[in-house]
Amino acid sequence: MGQLKEDVYRANMELPKRGLVTYTWGNVSGIDRGSGCFVIKPSGVSYDRLRPEDMVVVNLQGECVEGSCRPSSDTPTHLELYRKYPRIGGIVHTHSSWATSWAQAGRDIPLYGTTQADYFFGPVACARELTDEEIDGEYEKNTGLVMIECLEARKMNPEYHPGMLVKNHGPFTWGKDAAEAVHNAVVLEEIAKMAFRTEQLNPEAVPAGQALIQKHFYRKHGENAYYGQN
Amino acid sequence: MGQLKEDVYRANMELPKRGLVTYTWGNVSGIDRGSGCFVIKPSGVSYDRLRPEDMVVVNLQGECVEGSCRPSSDTPTHLELYRKYPRIGGIVHTHSSWATSWAQAGRDIPLYGTTQADYFFGPVACARELTDEEIDGEYEKNTGLVMIECLEARKMNPEYHPGMLVKNHGPFTWGKDAAEAVHNAVVLEEIAKMAFRTEQLNPEAVPAGQALIQKHFYRKHGENAYYGQN
Amino acid sequence: MGQLKEDVYRANMELPKRGLVTYTWGNVSGIDRGSGCFVIKPSGVSYDRLRPEDMVVVNLQGECVEGSCRPSSDTPTHLELYRKYPRIGGIVHTHSSWATSWAQAGRDIPLYGTTQADYFFGPVACARELTDEEIDGEYEKNTGLVMIECLEARKMNPEYHPGMLVKNHGPFTWGKDAAEAVHNAVVLEEIAKMAFRTEQLNPEAVPAGQALIQKHFYRKHGENAYYGQN
Amino acid sequence: MGQLKEDVYRANMELPKRGLVTYTWGNVSGIDRGSGCFVIKPSGVSYDRLRPEDMVVVNLQGECVEGSCRPSSDTPTHLELYRKYPRIGGIVHTHSSWATSWAQAGRDIPLYGTTQADYFFGPVACARELTDEEIDGEYEKNTGLVMIECLEARKMNPEYHPGMLVKNHGPFTWGKDAAEAVHNAVVLEEIAKMAFRTEQLNPEAVPAGQALIQKHFYRKHGENAYYGQN
Repeated sequence: MGQLKEDVYRANMELPKRGLVTYTWGNVSGIDRGSGCFVIKPSGVSYDRLRPEDMVVVNLQGECVEGSCRPSSDTPTHLELYRKYPRIGGIVHTHSSWATSWAQAGRDIPLYGTTQADYFFGPVACARELTDEEIDGEYEKNTGLVMIECLEARKMNPEYHPGMLVKNHGPFTWGKDAAEAVHNAVVLEEIAKMAFRTEQLNPEAVPAGQALIQKHFYRKHGENAYYGQN
Repeated sequence: MGQLKEDVYRANMELPKRGLVTYTWGNVSGIDRGSGCFVIKPSGVSYDRLRPEDMVVVNLQGECVEGSCRPSSDTPTHLELYRKYPRIGGIVHTHSSWATSWAQAGRDIPLYGTTQADYFFGPVACARELTDEEIDGEYEKNTGLVMIECLEARKMNPEYHPGMLVKNHGPFTWGKDAAEAVHNAVVLEEIAKMAFRTEQLNPEAVPAGQALIQKHFYRKHGENAYYGQN
Repeated sequence: MGQLKEDVYRANMELPKRGLVTYTWGNVSGIDRGSGCFVIKPSGVSYDRLRPEDMVVVNLQGECVEGSCRPSSDTPTHLELYRKYPRIGGIVHTHSSWATSWAQAGRDIPLYGTTQADYFFGPVACARELTDEEIDGEYEKNTGLVMIECLEARKMNPEYHPGMLVKNHGPFTWGKDAAEAVHNAVVLEEIAKMAFRTEQLNPEAVPAGQALIQKHFYRKHGENAYYGQN
Repeated sequence: MGQLKEDVYRANMELPKRGLVTYTWGNVSGIDRGSGCFVIKPSGVSYDRLRPEDMVVVNLQGECVEGSCRPSSDTPTHLELYRKYPRIGGIVHTHSSWATSWAQAGRDIPLYGTTQADYFFGPVACARELTDEEIDGEYEKNTGLVMIECLEARKMNPEYHPGMLVKNHGPFTWGKDAAEAVHNAVVLEEIAKMAFRTEQLNPEAVPAGQALIQKHFYRKHGENAYYGQN
């Protein structure tokens, strides 16, 4: 797991560099599907003291199998997402300002333009708040279950919707690995900011149509993609 | 008091580094309860010329007992808080932009999400404006008394509410020491910014429920805390 | 084309330096009218790995004539503008946050003050959204044609209007060369930001009058210009 | 004039450092009342190429008496202010984003709190737009005259009101010398930002009362000042 620890460490360090975290308000994990173990940031450790060897290894039963630190308190949320969606390879949680503001507002982020369509196949979903019972029970696990409930109810494929919000909380994003999950966290923050400004400029702003969404999403994804060098 | 001067100096230097002050618009103090003396920034000294030995030592009668500089003009405000609340170990005052905007608006900051609940056990209170008599009298002392009046009237324990606003003025935060008080000043600025955006996105946004507040506050505070490495 | 490649490379590198791009969300081109070829950024190449020799040379028939990389996916948009307007020497496309927000709102940017009048002879136009047929057809080419349609219908001379928006997409700017086009992209982002704030402060704000526009535009442009050292 | 050139040069260089200018959108001057000459930035010269020896010396008849560059196109505006108000020692003009947005909105900045009262003895005035005749005539001179008209009509002493706005244009600030004028330009930008946010948070926000304004202004100004070390 040495390389994965290094990769997850680097992905974590991108969060403060990209301005997505204040203090320790964020965490990144990445999974090795072969061994069924994922690597995650230790809880509450400051980014300027974080080292690759501090990363914690957790298996899909939620047991710590390597590392001397306690894993992120959000580990059970990551675990549920990894168990449900075998194609997710990395997960990020932050309290980045713009995305968290939408989460606190309890609103989906409408797809107002091509920037969002390059990554998301529609609006960014906001999952419901947890009930008191869910909060008082296995809170972090239930946070994951509420996200899954939302994705399933809305028939959202996580490969087409690489992130979402949890009401009164904040954003989660994912990707094929930890680095891509962080990339999507940066993207989500940018589109959250622009959607905010769009609505302030025009409260009657209309989301982009399906043809534009498809055009841009498939410019970058799938077998007919023609963006980039590959 | 050499170590405390050094600690308070470092805490002061965090303010410009974290973007919380313009010019000299802020000050940090820290107290040594054993000797009953606190250390505070000198008045009007630029942060890029500030040195540990410039810190001023003041006792709980408000007398300067060490240092060649005049203490912060806000010293009597700090003094009242230290006298009233023996568990406060450090205090910060700034004119940080987002928190000051709420103070100028004369509004509490509603608790819209888990970011705030991790630190505050409810809304951030905004104390009333001072009367003309209070302003023309011992202004800085009265600023402290108005904050205490607000906390007491609303039965707010300062350990559960590590900061507040003064109407038409700005934010004050505190903590177990100067460093924690600065940490809470950074947090307050972040939640002030996100609460602003939350309301712009949804004027009908509803504050988080009591179960969520308790869950998050006690994840980080008290004997059942499970966030971090201790 | 060695010098032009170097110039276009430098102009591209200004975009992240000036905060106008996230990841690879932008591209700059510059044309050599003598040879009828333009140089453009390769598609999807990260700015921190970009080199002058990666620039792609394309002729006015849209054929790549030099370079081992695939050109920007937006190349056909640049091509249409170069073909229609022989005095355009450089073109920039970004998803810069403020300008893109106006594009997503589907609105012209009104000319509220002298900052805009120093560069634009009136509001910044927002072209209509593309039809589904235009999207499903030659999308990037049609993006260029929709901009031209808008400029022609509104009798806007591109030398007096060095940039515009495409609805649901983002901004395009141009200039006598790649460097000036980037300069205008920075200007557009600033005026988009200030116009946003102007309207928030005063929903009844009135655009500046024609006399002020002419005064400021001609202070900097044309034979009677008296701004600067030449 | 060697020292004054150096001082005005340094004051000019503070503008980009403090984030108040984009490209060449700003200028600072400082006057030597003894000789009746002021030093001002040359027109349109980029800040990263500016040198102390490029500063231009102008007398109170508006004639260039030293320097090989053309002075700022806004020189006649500075001239009118220096001629009318003998106690002004330095002047700054920028298009800083927040202050310019208020100018474009055509609004005074209400005094919502102590941050503003520490520097301004009331709201920041916004002078009217120029008439077409004033624009087509001696435009830059008339800009100065319109500011003076506003200050006189409102009986505003420039020592108590160290800056103002010109509608559809932007902010001007002044002080006892060039450095203080720049300091006030930074302050104006900060208070413009906070007043914007205050109104967004509370459209019914009420300006601070006269007692608070006097308290804070005189903490820092006049013979009874007790802020700082002198």
